Amino acid sequence: MYKIVFMRHGESTWNLENRFTGWVDVDLTAKGVAEAKAAGRALKEAGFTFDLTYTSVLKRAIRTLWLALDEMDAMYLPVKNDWRLNERHYGALQGLDKGETAAKFGDEQVLVWRRSYDTPPPALEKNDDRTSFGDPRYASLDESQIPLTECLKDTVARVMPAWNDEIAPAIRAGKNILISAHGNSLRAIIKMLDNISDADIVGLNIPNGQPLVYELDADLKPIKHYYLGDQAAIAAAMAAVANQGKAK
Amino acid sequence: MYKIVFMRHGESTWNLENRFTGWVDVDLTAKGVAEAKAAGRALKEAGFTFDLTYTSVLKRAIRTLWLALDEMDAMYLPVKNDWRLNERHYGALQGLDKGETAAKFGDEQVLVWRRSYDTPPPALEKNDDRTSFGDPRYASLDESQIPLTECLKDTVARVMPAWNDEIAPAIRAGKNILISAHGNSLRAIIKMLDNISDADIVGLNIPNGQPLVYELDADLKPIKHYYLGDQAAIAAAMAAVANQGKAK
Repeated sequence: MYKIVFMRHGESTWNLENRFTGWVDVDLTAKGVAEAKAAGRALKEAGFTFDLTYTSVLKRAIRTLWLALDEMDAMYLPVKNDWRLNERHYGALQGLDKGETAAKFGDEQVLVWRRSYDTPPPALEKNDDRTSFGDPRYASLDESQIPLTECLKDTVARVMPAWNDEIAPAIRAGKNILISAHGNSLRAIIKMLDNISDADIVGLNIPNGQPLVYELDADLKPIKHYYLGDQAAIAAAMAAVANQGKAK
Repeated sequence: MYKIVFMRHGESTWNLENRFTGWVDVDLTAKGVAEAKAAGRALKEAGFTFDLTYTSVLKRAIRTLWLALDEMDAMYLPVKNDWRLNERHYGALQGLDKGETAAKFGDEQVLVWRRSYDTPPPALEKNDDRTSFGDPRYASLDESQIPLTECLKDTVARVMPAWNDEIAPAIRAGKNILISAHGNSLRAIIKMLDNISDADIVGLNIPNGQPLVYELDADLKPIKHYYLGDQAAIAAAMAAVANQGKAK
């Protein structure tokens, strides 16, 4: 039997400001820092140890991981940064306030963009300052690999090779793995693990900064999963995520 | 022409307490944190960018690197943790106060232990609580690879394979590399690069938290080297290191 632990990053400045973030490299808030540290303490207190960690190339996930590792006194663990674990790219919505966008386009349209499996938001123009072209962290990619927008289906398509080629073989090799990533890159993995339908996956809300433990059988099929920590706080955090896209 | 940048970690709690540290995993002081951040800012202001970073498995070097990367807005860079870049193991002196040790054994004996190329301090007993046996960060090593003491010659012998097998090929492949390590693991590399004699290397003092730039030719032979930053502060830091082993 295997175990793997997922963490969505702690609260970011744009979670707090209720703006669409995507690939924009915003940092954690003070609350997000506290959430990341608490996640590390919860893992330590529950006796978890790791051999290998994965995260994206976005600092809100990296800092969450670093803070958790520091709390676990395990800063020496290997960290693999993989752009394929980045948040879903939010296209031309990146940087926009979620409430204003909802007020302008309607809750329903925003919910479609946020939660439809295969309808992407409007794409960034190639000459938009908000594209990731020219960012050194993506220098090794073909321009065609750098998204201008993504629906969740697109995110799943780029996350899955990271799982199949890197993470799953490491689990099978007996490595205890911690992944610090984003709401939608984690949805992609959980959709595959739990065989969740395209319709249902969009309703799965992953709270910020709460370690999510999956126990897997020899075929990497889930036996059970659970969040570590204060269960009432986790329920509140999940409800907060569900409400983020609504007009105030 | 190639460039590589070395950093000795910022001031640690045991630098401050004037104790022999070696493989003991002490953290940075507030001053050490400030030094690490300043190093990152100096690198950023001088326009340095990196593709790859190396550090040891000891938190004073890892945290120095993390803080510098954060200041450079480059937290996404790959970090390779290599135990072979650890500080020289200080044997049975680990944890002892340098001034007291000097008062007891004499400045001269302590200077021999600190600065002789091939005379190690007394070894730890295998059953001493201070050995690194059982530490998960060394779990993949044979017990014979985990030192009980080291002279600088021993440190050189374990650092060189990391240079020859990992770092030098990456430099030749065109990677811009930042290494955050320790006084003696950096001495080992610099001894080899500058072809410094066994007698002279022990007099080389590397200040804490100052980026040291080496420009190398196509054969990885040094063309020149220099510290970034405030030159008066660097001179003072080098003198402070030279005085650490003396009784007060």
